[in-house]
Amino acid sequence: MHPNDPGLRSFVDVDPSSDFPIRNLPYGVFSTSNSPAPRVGVAIGNHVLDLAVLDSEGLIDLGAAKGVFAQSAINAFMALGPKVWSQTRTRISQLLRHDNAELRDNAALRKRALLPRDQVTLHLPLEVKGFTDFYSSKEHATNVGTMFRDKTNPLLPNWLHIPIGYNGRASTVVVSGTKVKRPRGQLKPPSAELPTFGPCKRLDFELEIGVVIGQPSAMGEMLTEAQAEAMIFGFVLLNDWSARDIQQWEYVPLGPFQAKAFATSISPWIVTREALEPFRLHGPTQDPMPLPYLQQRQPNNYDMALDVALRAPGMAAPASICTTNFKYMYWSSVQQLVHHASSGCAMNVGDLLGSGTISGPEKHQRGSLLEISWNGTEPVELPGGIKRSFLEDGDSLSFHGWCQGNGYRIGFGEVEGTIVPSA
Amino acid sequence: MHPNDPGLRSFVDVDPSSDFPIRNLPYGVFSTSNSPAPRVGVAIGNHVLDLAVLDSEGLIDLGAAKGVFAQSAINAFMALGPKVWSQTRTRISQLLRHDNAELRDNAALRKRALLPRDQVTLHLPLEVKGFTDFYSSKEHATNVGTMFRDKTNPLLPNWLHIPIGYNGRASTVVVSGTKVKRPRGQLKPPSAELPTFGPCKRLDFELEIGVVIGQPSAMGEMLTEAQAEAMIFGFVLLNDWSARDIQQWEYVPLGPFQAKAFATSISPWIVTREALEPFRLHGPTQDPMPLPYLQQRQPNNYDMALDVALRAPGMAAPASICTTNFKYMYWSSVQQLVHHASSGCAMNVGDLLGSGTISGPEKHQRGSLLEISWNGTEPVELPGGIKRSFLEDGDSLSFHGWCQGNGYRIGFGEVEGTIVPSA
Repeated sequence: MHPNDPGLRSFVDVDPSSDFPIRNLPYGVFSTSNSPAPRVGVAIGNHVLDLAVLDSEGLIDLGAAKGVFAQSAINAFMALGPKVWSQTRTRISQLLRHDNAELRDNAALRKRALLPRDQVTLHLPLEVKGFTDFYSSKEHATNVGTMFRDKTNPLLPNWLHIPIGYNGRASTVVVSGTKVKRPRGQLKPPSAELPTFGPCKRLDFELEIGVVIGQPSAMGEMLTEAQAEAMIFGFVLLNDWSARDIQQWEYVPLGPFQAKAFATSISPWIVTREALEPFRLHGPTQDPMPLPYLQQRQPNNYDMALDVALRAPGMAAPASICTTNFKYMYWSSVQQLVHHASSGCAMNVGDLLGSGTISGPEKHQRGSLLEISWNGTEPVELPGGIKRSFLEDGDSLSFHGWCQGNGYRIGFGEVEGTIVPSA
Repeated sequence: MHPNDPGLRSFVDVDPSSDFPIRNLPYGVFSTSNSPAPRVGVAIGNHVLDLAVLDSEGLIDLGAAKGVFAQSAINAFMALGPKVWSQTRTRISQLLRHDNAELRDNAALRKRALLPRDQVTLHLPLEVKGFTDFYSSKEHATNVGTMFRDKTNPLLPNWLHIPIGYNGRASTVVVSGTKVKRPRGQLKPPSAELPTFGPCKRLDFELEIGVVIGQPSAMGEMLTEAQAEAMIFGFVLLNDWSARDIQQWEYVPLGPFQAKAFATSISPWIVTREALEPFRLHGPTQDPMPLPYLQQRQPNNYDMALDVALRAPGMAAPASICTTNFKYMYWSSVQQLVHHASSGCAMNVGDLLGSGTISGPEKHQRGSLLEISWNGTEPVELPGGIKRSFLEDGDSLSFHGWCQGNGYRIGFGEVEGTIVPSA
């Protein structure tokens, strides 16, 4: 049975609302108090399956790559390539099936390999080699252009031709749950004559999906659509925290720097491209037609629901402030990757590509507070009379994402971050 | 004797014009045909001293870090910190002194450890964790602003307040001698209605110095001047190859991306901060006074001569097209690093910070063809009637850099790259 087969069932109990049915099998890195060395696992229902244990017991045949899961990042496994990714996922799926006795009936092994998720600590799942952030939602770019440039002509001339992107900072990509210290920086409101240095006053999130690159490309080489697709290992939820006031003063002419350098949060689970296969669809019609190197023959978008919730101090529960879908992206991840390599830029195993803020055509689909509060002019109202234009200290922000199947979902869990004061 | 002492002499013969006297001792990574595993060495005259051999023979005491030189990058050694950097340099200096018999009189060891430089292959000396490029020469920014923006007001409003920088691409930092394939990309001259995709027509170099970061800083923390200085391990020559036409079309609003992603060349030798200590001086007066976090108490600039030579196909020898000095930089490397961390951005061992194009006040001090040819309007004339506005296939570009002492120089060797066609 293919690991995406709708008929699959696991001996591990999985609630239909769980993000992690047997058809998902996302990869993460975890540790336990008994065994503090981080290693690779997959999520199944409310459990984590320890792949390092399965490998050491000979239940997963990785040949010469034995030991690859007993590492603190998934990079070495990714480097083995798409054929091994697929074989391994098939084997894990088989081991978790209701009708396979190998793990199911081995109580001692189950105890060691199948751990309750609430008893593990989740770590950053990959060593991020390079972090690139794109700007590929037409609705987001239009909103920003309307606010800051020209209502009647909000998109810049290059936007419809190039998946616009910039290099971000890999050193501050952190896993969900990591506290985010409010950044300091140079601030110069348009009305001030001189800049001052201090805590950011316009702290924002950006709802994004991150693409995890699992195969390298050579310096000097371009990629076809098929080559680019085959290099994509999987996807994460990604919060591209942004200091709007720092950005405003620093970004001309070389782009965002410190405004985006202080933190980028990702989900602990990498959902594989293979698991998302059933949810592929064509993106919006591209007009004008992209240049030939960017043209797509395959459906490279995904029907993936996304939700952003904000919990301010004093709120009993998070409140949703954005509900949108990854399918709206104008430029697909495949197009972004093809463009990224187009000059001859080498790609590495462990590169992370942020989609850019994911907004949608409707008001409730705006993927940043900048857009939601329309640059602070329409603060969002939360339960209990709390209002927000930008993030305040103590605010907790969480994203969820999932592809909804018939009676199951393929999800990411969440990416959460709480703002703590500058000093 | 301090390893910078003017009285030092080595038993290794060193020409007074050599970049690599005993007072330099720059680090590199090399291999030989007999022993192809890359390892760390220092340059001395026309030789390379194999530090992995000295370590294995017990001549350098690295304690628990034994073996750190038997690696293909200098990162692990750098991670040991400034105290070890200093002790190790002192010890290597001692081993090379004319009056020290340990190595001098051990012919068998000398044969293994002291290799003619023309018999080794030099590799990229570090694993580049992050590459950041600044824009810190006032003369360069003024030239660019005069050409493209406003002759009477060429600097952007933020330039005198912020060491402007952006994240570059670490995956394509290559060592001197690596061929550079002409990048392809989207080109849209102002007169064209639509972009086309093809080989860059305005390929340029940028003369820069790269700062090699040898110590980390924590996420969320700022750096003082002293802390930043202590994190700097050394310096390299750096050529920030640039595709001007790709850049022009792509860079608004998020900065250069593919225009700078195809290649960045560095010298194989990292000259240590300690070796350059005698050549420190104060940079230009900064007016307006920088914000307090960027103010400097120490002289953080360097009196370092720089030369750019171009050799077009058919030329018998390279011809100098730029002669300038690192001392002109408006923002120092220390200020750049302090600013880089100011938002809370974590710095890593192996981060590389490009200074930005180094120009100077005079016409012959312009550090890019864009400036030398004044955007193609004044092509540079080379011997044999050859003219260049931008680089053509087959052109070889080389930078040299050195600090001139009394009867000796502390130099980098060179960084060279030759342009090869796109396809």
